Amino acid sequence: MLERIRIVLIGTSHPGNIGGTARAMHNMGLADLALVAPRCEPISADTVSRASGADHIVHAARQVATLEEAVADCTLVVGASARSRTLPWPMTTPRELAESLPAELADERARVALVFGREDSGLSNSELQRCHAHVNIPANPDFSSLNLATAVQVLAYECRLVWLAQQVGDTDDTPEAAAPTPHALANHQELERYFAHLERTLVAIGFHDPATPRQLMARLRRFTLRARPERMELNILRGILTATEQRTRCPKTDE
Amino acid sequence: MLERIRIVLIGTSHPGNIGGTARAMHNMGLADLALVAPRCEPISADTVSRASGADHIVHAARQVATLEEAVADCTLVVGASARSRTLPWPMTTPRELAESLPAELADERARVALVFGREDSGLSNSELQRCHAHVNIPANPDFSSLNLATAVQVLAYECRLVWLAQQVGDTDDTPEAAAPTPHALANHQELERYFAHLERTLVAIGFHDPATPRQLMARLRRFTLRARPERMELNILRGILTATEQRTRCPKTDE
Repeated sequence: MLERIRIVLIGTSHPGNIGGTARAMHNMGLADLALVAPRCEPISADTVSRASGADHIVHAARQVATLEEAVADCTLVVGASARSRTLPWPMTTPRELAESLPAELADERARVALVFGREDSGLSNSELQRCHAHVNIPANPDFSSLNLATAVQVLAYECRLVWLAQQVGDTDDTPEAAAPTPHALANHQELERYFAHLERTLVAIGFHDPATPRQLMARLRRFTLRARPERMELNILRGILTATEQRTRCPKTDE
Repeated sequence: MLERIRIVLIGTSHPGNIGGTARAMHNMGLADLALVAPRCEPISADTVSRASGADHIVHAARQVATLEEAVADCTLVVGASARSRTLPWPMTTPRELAESLPAELADERARVALVFGREDSGLSNSELQRCHAHVNIPANPDFSSLNLATAVQVLAYECRLVWLAQQVGDTDDTPEAAAPTPHALANHQELERYFAHLERTLVAIGFHDPATPRQLMARLRRFTLRARPERMELNILRGILTATEQRTRCPKTDE
């Protein structure tokens, strides 16, 4: 289970936090780290010092330019965030999230990404809207921003406790095998392709004007991601969009 | 409850860890810090930088020469430690410890101390033996030593969750205790009208043939109901269907 949990850091400014994240991950038995457009040199003296022996995780980390690339193969993408401002999104707690992982990862192909934003500004709205859910670490409302590596530690700790609980009295080494196999969920890339197709179609039928979005796509994202679409369902939805597009070459008829 | 939990750091070498501890404490709502014979200047640039706005906790910290002085008034003293080597001691987990605190702190005069040792060597045997119990953070057996401030964070986090659970249903509504405002879910009738509208539209665009349904509507129902649509979301979806219908009076153009 732990090997299919990916920690994704976006736009990290301080190499020390990357090192601290690697240490927290290795302490808790996680190893899959992805760095999205870091705003610092990931490997530095601070990295090695804060990693304190776990810098192999930083060396093995995948460095990419966009969140898309970091989570393309993930079936569940959860963003660390304060309670959402503009548009409320499904919120979970670190414990609820961890307790959902055995089922989420029951399918061998399943991958979970835990996404952490910039030290100064966190995750952007567009990044938050690419997540199935947001996880919020309960904190002092007057001082709620945790250090990046410390926030990773709290989530990784909850994941490890759930994993440990699974090991107890487990005969074979694959505790996930016990859990029921879920549907073949669409992955992030398939979902993003659908949203792009949906937006094109909504523009084509004159329902959506990107110039005045009024959060339309955000609301449709939230609705769709909440349903956790299966690959087959997404194929049906895209078929509907394609059939709709074939109608859009004639003038709009108002009655 | 939180105000009667004291964090005690013994022989800390790195001011950054004192600052990081202050930040973790303030994040979780703890304020009582005691420094026992620190091996560094507690207030430094690193302290302030890692404290990131919580250095008032370090300024207010009591600095003493011995563990005795730091915990003299405490009714429960718990030392953070790996599984005891020489002499087995009552061991607890962060969660078990936190769950015991409401009872431990029921008496107004009760005080709990959570004691953390040196970055390099932890707590000495004589220090460990001054504790009622030892708490061990479950970690990778091959890499079990957490950063000091990170270890404080994990224990403080567990304490906060127990404290929050106590607030729920309390007369004073702390933001955390407040339940999320329920969505205005669409009712059955609104959902059925949507499904009828959806089927009409799918027929109109030539995607659906009621003569050979192939469970299309059943699959779309299952997908949609799984998302528990809100009334507002259903209005958006019906708006899309209406815009689509306005295109269906012209012949289908195949390309």
